[in-house]
Amino acid sequence: MPEETARSPEFVQSLERGLAVIRAFDAEHPQLTLSDVARATGLTRAAARRFLLTLVELGYVHTDGRLFSLRPRILELGYAYLSSLSLPEVAQPHMEALVAQVHESCSVSVLDGGEVVYVARVPTKRIMTVGISVGTRFPAYATSMGRVLLAAQPADWLDDYLAGAELRPLTRRTVTDPAKLRTVLRRIAAQGYAIVDQELEEGLRSLAAPIRGDNGSVIAAVNVSAHASRGSSETIRRELLPPLLATAERIEQDLRAGVNR
Amino acid sequence: MPEETARSPEFVQSLERGLAVIRAFDAEHPQLTLSDVARATGLTRAAARRFLLTLVELGYVHTDGRLFSLRPRILELGYAYLSSLSLPEVAQPHMEALVAQVHESCSVSVLDGGEVVYVARVPTKRIMTVGISVGTRFPAYATSMGRVLLAAQPADWLDDYLAGAELRPLTRRTVTDPAKLRTVLRRIAAQGYAIVDQELEEGLRSLAAPIRGDNGSVIAAVNVSAHASRGSSETIRRELLPPLLATAERIEQDLRAGVNR
Repeated sequence: MPEETARSPEFVQSLERGLAVIRAFDAEHPQLTLSDVARATGLTRAAARRFLLTLVELGYVHTDGRLFSLRPRILELGYAYLSSLSLPEVAQPHMEALVAQVHESCSVSVLDGGEVVYVARVPTKRIMTVGISVGTRFPAYATSMGRVLLAAQPADWLDDYLAGAELRPLTRRTVTDPAKLRTVLRRIAAQGYAIVDQELEEGLRSLAAPIRGDNGSVIAAVNVSAHASRGSSETIRRELLPPLLATAERIEQDLRAGVNR
Repeated sequence: MPEETARSPEFVQSLERGLAVIRAFDAEHPQLTLSDVARATGLTRAAARRFLLTLVELGYVHTDGRLFSLRPRILELGYAYLSSLSLPEVAQPHMEALVAQVHESCSVSVLDGGEVVYVARVPTKRIMTVGISVGTRFPAYATSMGRVLLAAQPADWLDDYLAGAELRPLTRRTVTDPAKLRTVLRRIAAQGYAIVDQELEEGLRSLAAPIRGDNGSVIAAVNVSAHASRGSSETIRRELLPPLLATAERIEQDLRAGVNR
């Protein structure tokens, strides 16, 4: 549960708790018992039971009496946001064309606070998956899309971010020094793309470019990610940057033309 | 707001109301004022304000002081469900291959009560969009995927459904007679696919096939939809049924093989 200090007097705690119950379910925990939910949320069993039964009555949760799981209706909560964005729909065919060309997965994300949130993804077909889907969040500082988006923020926003962000080492390569990250972001802003070499996860390299909206401001980022076995960062830049930049350009053109609006 | 009669004594009304506030936002209404939210939900302005401010504090809603909009974090609610399904991820590459081959949009959906819910979609690239995305719901009786899923239900479930469903005419072709729908569903069960010819929307034809899980039961449906300009139902059956059935078979094979598990 989030900290409950400093909440406004009008804060509706029941809503916070009910949303925490929904979030208790995930890919690793699609089915939970009452005890599981109580444990995951920090609620008493009695409280967890009330929220679960309310969600059952509203059609968001299924139960066989013992195990609880989310029902498809839950999608209407997140998808109100997604369907209000034209970006994923506009980007999708261009992302598919890129994946068909380079045989690496392609994603589009937006910045939300200090994190990137995936809003579209076209995985390449592999036996092994990396477990990323629309809605996945990563800390912006350690990802190529995050750095493209951070590099486009106003100077005072970035000052606040660098002063406050906890830059944890996710691998032994992660840049964790704010001053060094600022230098990296300046270079990204100047060159128009970012490469991240195994700073989020060992063995994973990623290349990202900005997507600009009508008024020229960066609204999202598009990337391709590749296993280290594909080659060095330089190989990836040489092979994948031109098609990635062309994809970003096509998405921007369609956004300007109002395709799918 | 749903009916508030017959709620269990433990029902948490604040959670229902908070979720209604989230659902007030959609593709047509991505930005709402306090008054808009109060009107859409039936809440008083004071109540709507408390829920909106709570959602702002939790990071799910953004406000400039007057207009409210959903933030990307809202995706974590619906995507907990989606990421718990392996089906969309397994189906996606096969759906993409089908769309590349036939140049029509492909979707996968599951049954939720009397409605189909889209869990994966690969649109074809066209200037005109039909505004369907993951999370979109349609009444099962008027759609090809819905009929495939209804046809696979146990007899007593289907009896209850046909006795209780309100079969509204969505176009002048929609089958609205329960006895006639039962006959249609029997044929679909026997032949292994469904064609719906402009019963959901004028000018739209759709062809669907079942996707079976490990134990042989139908867990989802996959379809292709085509504008009437593509040709008659017979043309669509001849041109699109073989690749659609092949796609369903490939998805089933990957599900059995545990790809992406």
